[in-house]
Amino acid sequence: MRRYFLFMLAILLCKISFSQNSDSVMIRKIFDQALTNSQCYQTLTDLTTQIGGRLAGSPQAAQAVEFMKKVLNENMFDSVWLQPCYVPHWVRGDKEIAYAEAKGKKTNLTICALGNSTGTGTKGIEAQVIEVKNFKQLDSLGEKNIKGKIVFYNYPFNEKFIDQFRAYGDAVGYRWAGPSRAAKYGAIATVVRSMTSNYDDVPHTGAMGYNDSFPKIPCCAVSLMGADKLDEMIRNNPDTKFYFRQTCEMKPDSVLSYNVIGELRGKKSPNQFITVGGHLDSWETGKGAQDDGAGCVQSIEVLRIFKNLGIKPNNTIRCVLFMNEENGSKGGAKYAEEAKRKGERHLFALESDAGGFSPQGFGFTGDSLAIRKIQSWKPLFEPYHIHEFDKGGGGSDIEHLKDECKVLCGLSPDSQRYFNYHHASTDVIENVNKRELELGAAAMASLIYLIDKYGL
Amino acid sequence: MRRYFLFMLAILLCKISFSQNSDSVMIRKIFDQALTNSQCYQTLTDLTTQIGGRLAGSPQAAQAVEFMKKVLNENMFDSVWLQPCYVPHWVRGDKEIAYAEAKGKKTNLTICALGNSTGTGTKGIEAQVIEVKNFKQLDSLGEKNIKGKIVFYNYPFNEKFIDQFRAYGDAVGYRWAGPSRAAKYGAIATVVRSMTSNYDDVPHTGAMGYNDSFPKIPCCAVSLMGADKLDEMIRNNPDTKFYFRQTCEMKPDSVLSYNVIGELRGKKSPNQFITVGGHLDSWETGKGAQDDGAGCVQSIEVLRIFKNLGIKPNNTIRCVLFMNEENGSKGGAKYAEEAKRKGERHLFALESDAGGFSPQGFGFTGDSLAIRKIQSWKPLFEPYHIHEFDKGGGGSDIEHLKDECKVLCGLSPDSQRYFNYHHASTDVIENVNKRELELGAAAMASLIYLIDKYGL
Repeated sequence: MRRYFLFMLAILLCKISFSQNSDSVMIRKIFDQALTNSQCYQTLTDLTTQIGGRLAGSPQAAQAVEFMKKVLNENMFDSVWLQPCYVPHWVRGDKEIAYAEAKGKKTNLTICALGNSTGTGTKGIEAQVIEVKNFKQLDSLGEKNIKGKIVFYNYPFNEKFIDQFRAYGDAVGYRWAGPSRAAKYGAIATVVRSMTSNYDDVPHTGAMGYNDSFPKIPCCAVSLMGADKLDEMIRNNPDTKFYFRQTCEMKPDSVLSYNVIGELRGKKSPNQFITVGGHLDSWETGKGAQDDGAGCVQSIEVLRIFKNLGIKPNNTIRCVLFMNEENGSKGGAKYAEEAKRKGERHLFALESDAGGFSPQGFGFTGDSLAIRKIQSWKPLFEPYHIHEFDKGGGGSDIEHLKDECKVLCGLSPDSQRYFNYHHASTDVIENVNKRELELGAAAMASLIYLIDKYGL
Repeated sequence: MRRYFLFMLAILLCKISFSQNSDSVMIRKIFDQALTNSQCYQTLTDLTTQIGGRLAGSPQAAQAVEFMKKVLNENMFDSVWLQPCYVPHWVRGDKEIAYAEAKGKKTNLTICALGNSTGTGTKGIEAQVIEVKNFKQLDSLGEKNIKGKIVFYNYPFNEKFIDQFRAYGDAVGYRWAGPSRAAKYGAIATVVRSMTSNYDDVPHTGAMGYNDSFPKIPCCAVSLMGADKLDEMIRNNPDTKFYFRQTCEMKPDSVLSYNVIGELRGKKSPNQFITVGGHLDSWETGKGAQDDGAGCVQSIEVLRIFKNLGIKPNNTIRCVLFMNEENGSKGGAKYAEEAKRKGERHLFALESDAGGFSPQGFGFTGDSLAIRKIQSWKPLFEPYHIHEFDKGGGGSDIEHLKDECKVLCGLSPDSQRYFNYHHASTDVIENVNKRELELGAAAMASLIYLIDKYGL
């Protein structure tokens, strides 16, 4: 009996070590493909230079849908289609203008309107500006100090966070909720320090959301250099006034747009799905290269790699280029709604929306046992400098799918440079490194390969 | 007895866990310092914009020595001095010119002379160009096909290597040894494909070395775009001629230069040394930002962090800004020679010469037991995305110290972007990320803190 047991154990160990070995060989092939035969950098170059920024509802977003549909079709995936969804239609209007004025001296400041903000009217708004470091200070100032004034939220990125997304999470409330929280005390507008630790004169836009209980006051972001100038002026002269003009507006009617979807049909379980995606819309201040053209082209590359290596997946693998992540998430919501309506079984969804930088790992949310199984594969990724298989992670598009899907996952690239470019004019192809982008695509394809092969 | 044993074990475990905890607290403080109170990015900006490229023996190298001495003095280290060494004196001369000519049509190509190369004379050199993919092909062509011609080494970076330094190691022989190996068969000059996988029109210089048995023929590097153009022309017309003109020369006399050294004196073992360094000289095609201004300012930062946190080291810690790494390594040789002459005991030497990118780990060479001890500290670094404590590693400056020093170590940053800038006009401060640079300095300081505290 003991002999038999040892014999079976030996066979089992052989089998495990063989399959680990064959997996590491396949992952090596996947990385080789991505590094030598990828189209993702070229597609991203074309998307960002021929179309550029593409906010949902804009003509550029419509062009991007057609462009990406063509790319998917050229790759001869099993099916390619557009999934309709209605998106909000916000437009920036004229180039924004701002200055601060103290003792008769005007100092120009570089700003941009926050996404979803109302405009100032064509004459602009001018009022005394009150600086606050945080919401606590805002609340303690209260209506008597704030009414009729412009609130300046000067909360910096915390540079001590190693992961820059933590710094973003820590600060972004001033952008998102700051306007309504100031309006509650009678503020007539807000200006927020840009969400970055990169010291330059480039403002960073991004979505804000109004609380319907309070007046919808206009709001903008100022560059870090501008924020420091403004801070200095206010310290020297508490009566400093702030003027800005932005003609942005939310149009009353929503616009028909689309998620762009490509699919490789599963040979064993065609009705079980693995989704890999990024979002196709981007802010129009930049060209949407890192956020999130990168995630889109990487997701397409996952399917290309499968095709090029002749891997016939067990499950149906879809790449989904979601629409409207930036200011409404209507594409993500629609994809999940349709999945639910059709009763689709979703095994795994992976989003790349943290930039096309060197991949460091993945974050997972969902079924604990399934996550533990995935974590056991970590040694296969370590030769590629990928070491972090952490709990917690996903993406704002696939988040909608959480009740339908066993495990949600986000790619975790190196975060140090992301917020230099995020939502800013610097988000251009020149700030994407080809190899880093490709390594991310390879990491994604490798993980999906294992999940498709072994199930969850 | 058993009780006593368990009691002692409990104390030991407490002690281990306490000291691990206090170490992780200190490492956190080191990273906080580097990320919020570092001077390294500003010093690197000043060095690269006020002085720029600084090849050993040049007036700029002399300026850089004075500049860095001043920086060290301003930081009030325990002692600061210059260590004299004689360096070769190679000058580039006029801007290089090159074209290929086929069927009467000239196509300009972007080249630069290789470091240490002879010139072509002011009229330049023109001859039929023979392309070879590797040395094997060169050898098989032999003298009858090569004599009187110019050899074009078109060996590409292998993009499959995840670590780009492996691709460099794989290809760089064509730059270093290619000229003499072609001269052996009577070639009158060589041109080599630049050492990068980044596809642009920027040539990358770097040192070559002549074998005294053969004529010292002039040699240059061509950009990747230029290499592909030349390759295409040769394929279409095997009679293609290559012309280039470079007026570089090795001056007959060596020049007095210096290593720049700063020191924090050890409180327990002042005669036991830990060295941390980078090299101060750089190619003059760029500004020497990543190679290796980054390593210099990080090394200074290690000592600054110790001072700012009030850490009084047990051993004497030196930062050494080595001279002449690029084309002679005379500074590294001199430092080791003096250490030997004075009978200094060197515990550990750490070099940062792989760029100021996000640190991924370290590589170690030397005493196996000591390396195992260092590797046991890896968990302390994992919260900072630093996972790789590998065997093998050091740096070409500290390499000279190998017989005097227990362990040599090289910082291992993410290598994906390094060879985009290496030895090229793109090696400028704009291609250095402040946080990545600071994280490298923090990683170096943390490792040296542990080695200084626990010994090896």
